[in-house]
Amino acid sequence: MKSPPGEIENKSKQLARLESFSDGVFAIAITLLILELIEMLHSSGRAELGKLLLAHWKSFLVFLIGFLTILVCWINHHLVLSFAEKTDGNFFWVNGFVLLVVTFTPFPTAILAEYLEKESHLALAIFGFNYFMMSIAAYCITVYINNRLTSHEKNELLHCYVLLYRWSIIYTLIVFFVCLIAVPLAIALYVLLFVVFAFPKEFASKLMAMRNKRKRRSSRRMTAG
Amino acid sequence: MKSPPGEIENKSKQLARLESFSDGVFAIAITLLILELIEMLHSSGRAELGKLLLAHWKSFLVFLIGFLTILVCWINHHLVLSFAEKTDGNFFWVNGFVLLVVTFTPFPTAILAEYLEKESHLALAIFGFNYFMMSIAAYCITVYINNRLTSHEKNELLHCYVLLYRWSIIYTLIVFFVCLIAVPLAIALYVLLFVVFAFPKEFASKLMAMRNKRKRRSSRRMTAG
Amino acid sequence: MKSPPGEIENKSKQLARLESFSDGVFAIAITLLILELIEMLHSSGRAELGKLLLAHWKSFLVFLIGFLTILVCWINHHLVLSFAEKTDGNFFWVNGFVLLVVTFTPFPTAILAEYLEKESHLALAIFGFNYFMMSIAAYCITVYINNRLTSHEKNELLHCYVLLYRWSIIYTLIVFFVCLIAVPLAIALYVLLFVVFAFPKEFASKLMAMRNKRKRRSSRRMTAG
Amino acid sequence: MKSPPGEIENKSKQLARLESFSDGVFAIAITLLILELIEMLHSSGRAELGKLLLAHWKSFLVFLIGFLTILVCWINHHLVLSFAEKTDGNFFWVNGFVLLVVTFTPFPTAILAEYLEKESHLALAIFGFNYFMMSIAAYCITVYINNRLTSHEKNELLHCYVLLYRWSIIYTLIVFFVCLIAVPLAIALYVLLFVVFAFPKEFASKLMAMRNKRKRRSSRRMTAG
Repeated sequence: MKSPPGEIENKSKQLARLESFSDGVFAIAITLLILELIEMLHSSGRAELGKLLLAHWKSFLVFLIGFLTILVCWINHHLVLSFAEKTDGNFFWVNGFVLLVVTFTPFPTAILAEYLEKESHLALAIFGFNYFMMSIAAYCITVYINNRLTSHEKNELLHCYVLLYRWSIIYTLIVFFVCLIAVPLAIALYVLLFVVFAFPKEFASKLMAMRNKRKRRSSRRMTAG
Repeated sequence: MKSPPGEIENKSKQLARLESFSDGVFAIAITLLILELIEMLHSSGRAELGKLLLAHWKSFLVFLIGFLTILVCWINHHLVLSFAEKTDGNFFWVNGFVLLVVTFTPFPTAILAEYLEKESHLALAIFGFNYFMMSIAAYCITVYINNRLTSHEKNELLHCYVLLYRWSIIYTLIVFFVCLIAVPLAIALYVLLFVVFAFPKEFASKLMAMRNKRKRRSSRRMTAG
Repeated sequence: MKSPPGEIENKSKQLARLESFSDGVFAIAITLLILELIEMLHSSGRAELGKLLLAHWKSFLVFLIGFLTILVCWINHHLVLSFAEKTDGNFFWVNGFVLLVVTFTPFPTAILAEYLEKESHLALAIFGFNYFMMSIAAYCITVYINNRLTSHEKNELLHCYVLLYRWSIIYTLIVFFVCLIAVPLAIALYVLLFVVFAFPKEFASKLMAMRNKRKRRSSRRMTAG
Repeated sequence: MKSPPGEIENKSKQLARLESFSDGVFAIAITLLILELIEMLHSSGRAELGKLLLAHWKSFLVFLIGFLTILVCWINHHLVLSFAEKTDGNFFWVNGFVLLVVTFTPFPTAILAEYLEKESHLALAIFGFNYFMMSIAAYCITVYINNRLTSHEKNELLHCYVLLYRWSIIYTLIVFFVCLIAVPLAIALYVLLFVVFAFPKEFASKLMAMRNKRKRRSSRRMTAG
C-alpha cells in the first residue's frame, strides 16, 4: 500500500504520540494503586490509627509490589520502544495489548491485597497469570519491532531482548503452576524474575556477551576441525 | 483577523499541546475502566475468590469492550490528526466534542456491566448511542481538518476517511434501533463496525483504490463514447 | 542573579515541561468528572435503568457544565501560555495557582450535582465562587506573562487578554452575589460569560480593534484640535 | 558495556520520555487529592450544605497542604532534572524512588484529614515521615545526576542543591520527632521547610553566594598568612 508524502513525514511524530499515550497509561495505572490504600483507610471506620496501620501492613507490601511491577513494565517498554524508528497500523494493536495488561494490573494487585491471607494460592496464581500475560505482551512487542520497525539489519542487543522475553514466557508459566502448589517457592522465583527485568539492559548485554563467546568458540572449533 | 508574528510561529507548538492534552484524556479514560472491576471486588464482601470471578465474567468482558472502544477511538483520532498542520480557535471545540464523547464512554460501559443481564435491550442501546455520537464526532473532526487545517490541495486518503466516518454515522444509527429489537444481531453488527475501525487506514486505502478504479473505468467509457 | 550557561539553554525545555505537567492536570480533572456519574449509577442500587437515567438528568447536565468549564479553562490557559517565551521560579507558583483552581473544580461541580435542587442559591454561589477564583488566576498568569516572560515590546493582543480577564474578575464577583438573590438571572449571566471565554481570541481581537478605532479617533480629534 | 550507535542517539529522547512519564505521575497524584473532598461530600448523607462545609474546613486545609506538597516536589524534580543530559539504567530506579514517594503522598494526606483531630501527634508524624522520605529521594536523585548524568565538570549550583537536600534530610528527621512531642512547633518548622523548597533556586543561589564569599575570605587569609 502506497502512502502519500505528508504521512511519511509524520512517521516519527506518530511514534512520539504513541509513546506519550503509553506513558500516560503507565503513569495513571501506577498512581491508581494508592486509591486502594485510601479505600482501606475509609472502610476501616476511624479505628485507632496505629493499630489500623499495623493490621494492614500487607496492604502496604502489596502497594509496593504493584508499584514496582508497573515500573518494571514501563522500564522495559521504554527500552524496547527506543529501538523502533517508525510505527504502523498493526503496531497500535501490539502496543495496545501491552497497555491492556498494564491497565489491568491494578485488579490482580487488589485481589492480592484482599485474598493473600484467605486464599493465598489462588490470589498469587492470578497475580502470577498477569506476569505471564505481561511476558507474552513484552515478547510480542519486541518481536514486532525487531521484524518490522527497525532498520538495523541485525541488531544483536534487540535480538537478546527477544530471547529474554521468550524465556520469561516459559518461566512465568511454570511459576504460575508453582503458585498453586508452593507459595513461598513461587514468591522466591518471582523475586528472581523481578531482579532480571529490573535491569533488562544489563542482562541482555550479558546474554549477548555469552552468545558471542560461544559463537567464537564454536567457530574456532570448526576452524580447528 | 490578523495575527501577530509570535503567534504564527507557535502554530505547530499549539497543535502539539492539543495532541498531548487529548492523549492525556484518552489515557485516563482507558485506565479508569479498571476502577469498575476493583469496585466489584470490594462490594462483593470477601466472597470466595474463584466463585466471585466466575460469577462476574461479564464484567471482564465489558472491561475489555470498553478498553477496545477507547483504543479504537484513540487510533482513529491519532490517524486523522496526523493530517492537521495547524490549529485554530474553532478546532479546540471540534476536538473538545471528541474528548467529551471519549470522557463519557466509561459511563455507558458501566451501564453495560450492571444492566446487560437485566435490561439488555436498553443497556446495549445506550452503549450503542455512544458509538453513534462517536461517529458524529469523528466525522466532524475529519471534515474540519479536511476543510481548514490541511494544505494538501486534494488529499484523497483524508477524503476517504470523511466518507468512512459519514457512513459510520448512518450505520451506528441503524444498529442503535436494531439494539431495541434484536440484541444478538446488534452485537454482530457492532463487531463488524469494530473490525473496520480497528484498521481505519487499511479500509480507507481500499476505499480509495475502489474509487480510483471506478473513476478510471468511467473516464475510459467516456473516452470510448 | 546570574544563571550558568547550561540552564539558559534549558529555558524552552523547562517551559515545555511546565506545559506538559499542566496538560496532565487539566486532562485528569476533566476526566474525573465521569466518576460522579458512575458513582450515581452504583449508589442507586440497581433501580430500573430508564427511570434512573431520567431521574438523574440534572447529573448529566452538571457533568456537561463541569466538562465545558475545564475545557474553557484549558483553551484560555493554552492561548495565554503561547505568549510565554521562557519561565522562572515565580511562574511555577503563578501557574500552580491556576492548577489549584482547576484541580478543585470537580468539587464545586459535585456540590452542584447534589445540592442544585435542595439548596440552589448556595450551591450555585459556591460554583460561581470557583469562576471568580478562575478569573483571578487567569488574570494573574496573563499579567505575569505580559510583564516578565515575553519579549514582544508591546504585544497589544496580550494586553487585551489582560483587560478581558480583569473585567471577568469584577463580572464574576457581581454574578456571585446575584446567585444568592436570583438563580435564573445568575445562570443567564454565566452563559454570557461562557460564550465570551469559549472564544477568547475572537473577543480579544474585537476589543483590540475597538481600542485602535477609539485611539485613532481621539488622535484625529487631537490633530484637528 | 558498549552500546550500539542507535541507542546513543536516543539518549536525549529517552530522557524526554522519563520526564513525560514523571510529569504524568505528578499530575495524577496532585489531582487525585480532590477525590478525598468529593468522598467527604458523598459520605455526609446530604446534610445541610453550609454546615457541612464549615464542619469540614480542615479537609480543605489538608487538600491545600497535599496540593502544595506535591507541587513543591514537582518544582524541585523539574529543577534538578534540568541538569541531567542523559539517562541510564540505574537512573530509572533512582527516579522511580522519587515517583514512589510522590505516588504515596495522597495516603498520608488522607490520614492527616481523618486523624488530625483525634490523633494529631501520630497523624502529623506519619505525614512528616513522608517529608523525610521525600528529602532522601530528592537527595538521591540530585547526587546521582551530579555524579553521573551531567558533563559540567564542576557545576556549583547543582552542588548547592545537593547540600540543600542533604540538610533537609536531617531537618525533616528532627521535625519528625518534634511531631511526637509538640504539634504546633512541628507545624511551624514545616512551614519554614516549605518556604525554602518553594523557591529552591533562590535558596541554592544564596547558598552558593555565601560559600563563594567564605572561600574568597579564607583564600585571602591563606594568602595573607
